[in-house]
Amino acid sequence: MKPSHIEHIGIAVKSLDEAIPFYEKAFGLECYAVEEVAEQKVKTAFFKVGQTKIELLESTDPEGPVGKFIEKKGEGVHHVAFAVENLAEKLVSIQEAGVRVIDKTPRQGAEGLNIGFLHPKSTFGVLTELCEDPSK
Amino acid sequence: MKPSHIEHIGIAVKSLDEAIPFYEKAFGLECYAVEEVAEQKVKTAFFKVGQTKIELLESTDPEGPVGKFIEKKGEGVHHVAFAVENLAEKLVSIQEAGVRVIDKTPRQGAEGLNIGFLHPKSTFGVLTELCEDPSK
Repeated sequence: MKPSHIEHIGIAVKSLDEAIPFYEKAFGLECYAVEEVAEQKVKTAFFKVGQTKIELLESTDPEGPVGKFIEKKGEGVHHVAFAVENLAEKLVSIQEAGVRVIDKTPRQGAEGLNIGFLHPKSTFGVLTELCEDPSK
Repeated sequence: MKPSHIEHIGIAVKSLDEAIPFYEKAFGLECYAVEEVAEQKVKTAFFKVGQTKIELLESTDPEGPVGKFIEKKGEGVHHVAFAVENLAEKLVSIQEAGVRVIDKTPRQGAEGLNIGFLHPKSTFGVLTELCEDPSK
């Protein structure tokens, strides 16, 4: 189940209005999309760095997962996403390897990707997402 | 100063002996190098995922930066490193853009790279490293 690349790095921020200009000015990156993911109670902003996206996450609800994360840990890296093929199979095989998962089967994430999260207690503290691009 | 790709993601772990087999078995990645960086009081293990390396960091001293990080925040993503060219110039220009830095000039990091850290208080909570490969 070797991932092909790091699909994105999710970063929890308090304000996209403050964080987007920072990534644009300090790093010269271009924000190419802003998208609300209602199910996750976040508004997301995307930048591309080589194969990998930076996904800034602003909570739309203090009780949502990113709102709670910021309250507990402050702003910072929220999750790391690996690009994989055959996500449904991977989620089965990784459970068979003893890894605890949050999503037993794929669900839809931002940008039309199919996603599944692994539990950070099983992944040395890193909330880890597996992503599959169904258009490929 | 647009970075070309995510050079690596640094992940603080308590034990390389436990974390390396996890990354190998759960993700099918190969640990291709283990290196001690005495100055940073860490032992590092590297995996390659597309353009990006996963750098696992085990502290060799509870008083070192990774030892303190784990004590305060637990295991998890410690820093994100962007690949850039002309690092010395970048560290100057990013300070001129108002970003606080930890390293005002480049210093040597793991794998023979020149590196410089930005301060997480200036980068929305993400300890951010800029890396330059002097062989390129």
